[in-house]
Amino acid sequence: MTPSCFFLGADIGGTNLRVALADSVGRILDSERASIADLRDPLLTVAKMRKLAAALLARQGVPASALRAVGAGAPGLTDTGRGIVLVTSYLMGWQDVPLRAYLEDAFGIPAAIDNDVNLAALGESRAGVAQSVDDFVFLAIGTGIGAGIVLGRQVHRGSNWRAGEVGYLLVPGVSEEPVPDGDPGAFEAQAGGEGIRQQWLSRWNPERTPLPRDLTATQIFDHARAGDALAAAVLHDTARVLSYGIYNLALVLDCPLFVLGGSVGLHPALAEKMRGILSRLDCHAPPRIVHSALGDQAQITGAVHLALERAALTAPAAGSTE
Amino acid sequence: MTPSCFFLGADIGGTNLRVALADSVGRILDSERASIADLRDPLLTVAKMRKLAAALLARQGVPASALRAVGAGAPGLTDTGRGIVLVTSYLMGWQDVPLRAYLEDAFGIPAAIDNDVNLAALGESRAGVAQSVDDFVFLAIGTGIGAGIVLGRQVHRGSNWRAGEVGYLLVPGVSEEPVPDGDPGAFEAQAGGEGIRQQWLSRWNPERTPLPRDLTATQIFDHARAGDALAAAVLHDTARVLSYGIYNLALVLDCPLFVLGGSVGLHPALAEKMRGILSRLDCHAPPRIVHSALGDQAQITGAVHLALERAALTAPAAGSTE
Repeated sequence: MTPSCFFLGADIGGTNLRVALADSVGRILDSERASIADLRDPLLTVAKMRKLAAALLARQGVPASALRAVGAGAPGLTDTGRGIVLVTSYLMGWQDVPLRAYLEDAFGIPAAIDNDVNLAALGESRAGVAQSVDDFVFLAIGTGIGAGIVLGRQVHRGSNWRAGEVGYLLVPGVSEEPVPDGDPGAFEAQAGGEGIRQQWLSRWNPERTPLPRDLTATQIFDHARAGDALAAAVLHDTARVLSYGIYNLALVLDCPLFVLGGSVGLHPALAEKMRGILSRLDCHAPPRIVHSALGDQAQITGAVHLALERAALTAPAAGSTE
Repeated sequence: MTPSCFFLGADIGGTNLRVALADSVGRILDSERASIADLRDPLLTVAKMRKLAAALLARQGVPASALRAVGAGAPGLTDTGRGIVLVTSYLMGWQDVPLRAYLEDAFGIPAAIDNDVNLAALGESRAGVAQSVDDFVFLAIGTGIGAGIVLGRQVHRGSNWRAGEVGYLLVPGVSEEPVPDGDPGAFEAQAGGEGIRQQWLSRWNPERTPLPRDLTATQIFDHARAGDALAAAVLHDTARVLSYGIYNLALVLDCPLFVLGGSVGLHPALAEKMRGILSRLDCHAPPRIVHSALGDQAQITGAVHLALERAALTAPAAGSTE
């Protein structure tokens, strides 16, 4: 590959779009972001992506002809084989969107897509905290909870592209009631950001805490660290449920490393608490719990590496002339 | 490969050894078994294996020179990469046994080893009920519970050869207490054969059932089918815990098929009950629950296919002369 190879990565969120320009080893040279909160039509999102990419190329003095591939992630169930976003959650409402084809049409280069949590896992595998391991799980804990599972340095996507749907895990301490369609799963309803807020609301009582009723999950964890007993109880119960989930995943997969991401997952009090619980559950070899090294860059870094790996698949064989 | 290729498979159990002679597509032509209940030294087990193999070859008129590879399974943690049985449970007490090297020395042909549950999964994948799927889980429910996980038609063994140690899963309804070293896990302590017997003992009361106090797990399930209310309650609670475990595995792996084996797993009342519970938990696409097609031949069939695949790795390249 010539040194003048460049790649695009895109992170399509519920409200924001980010596009990054990267070099031939996946280093991000520059990035742009824009709101897509008012866009429902995926083609409009792709058009905005082109606009951001054009700005990046101009700013970095890179000709469009030097782009080799584009990788993109969307927050939803994604058929990476056919290149289709099957369904997105939250605001976007995409269904059966042939995003890969849209991207290949728009950019005229090979494209690949995956869901956002899988891309975050890929990012940590290729350029983050999990570079030295073959098997690990990226656990994204935000409003809900999802996992990206990497086995043998490849994302494990499952028979129906649903692997890692851990928001529905059943562990001691969560509700056993069947979950109505579209509702959060039992596991995330307890230990996701919104679940943590609900735990707080249901226990809150002005006689038990001087803190206000309306707090976010990370604020509750801050107060737990600062010594509020009620907040500490919520932190403990959350960490317990999450630890049980991680313990189960570690057993099934025999996976030694868990990387926490997402606004709730990155809170330092949570990892600390979980390490204690996990070491009591398994005195021999509790899985290692670390924070994402890439933070909110994990997904776009994964998207860039998806593009690199897509290009490697379509690169002319060694020795052929370009 | 010439038509006169033959393979050996061996299933080393806690008390019995089975050896099978198979043809070049893995069909078992003949098999022998012997007790090894009094043997502790692995070399004595290998010597007995040679004796059984010699008897099979003589009976089938196959020259030893037509054997291409041998595959063997032991009931314990197995490093398939280095060919070492790290530790066995129950009576055998093997530790760090270089079984692959012992077999290669004894038979003078390539050998491969794996643990018994993984071999049962391989058997179902290559010649049993899971031939048409890429991903599935074999769940062996006997005294304890173990899983063999097949992803992309390959056994997933994990970072420390421990993948599928589901006996320790934490699901609603099992004990959350840390498990002392060497004790059964929380999941199998509830839903394995011995756990089911304990459930029965702890609930048994002559005023609640006309049945005797001393029953095995499968006898309890038989009585549940025949209408005994106390036995039916034990069956229900067992099926519930097992269903939660399967539900979790299906979520994590996105795996559509679960194959039940082992004396308890093969009981028809259990699968029936679990199908009902799983369809209530997930109204869209509950995983399919089927019984092992190979029954107590699953492991030795897997051993034979392990041998075939070992030979394929070492076969001379196509077109070379033998």
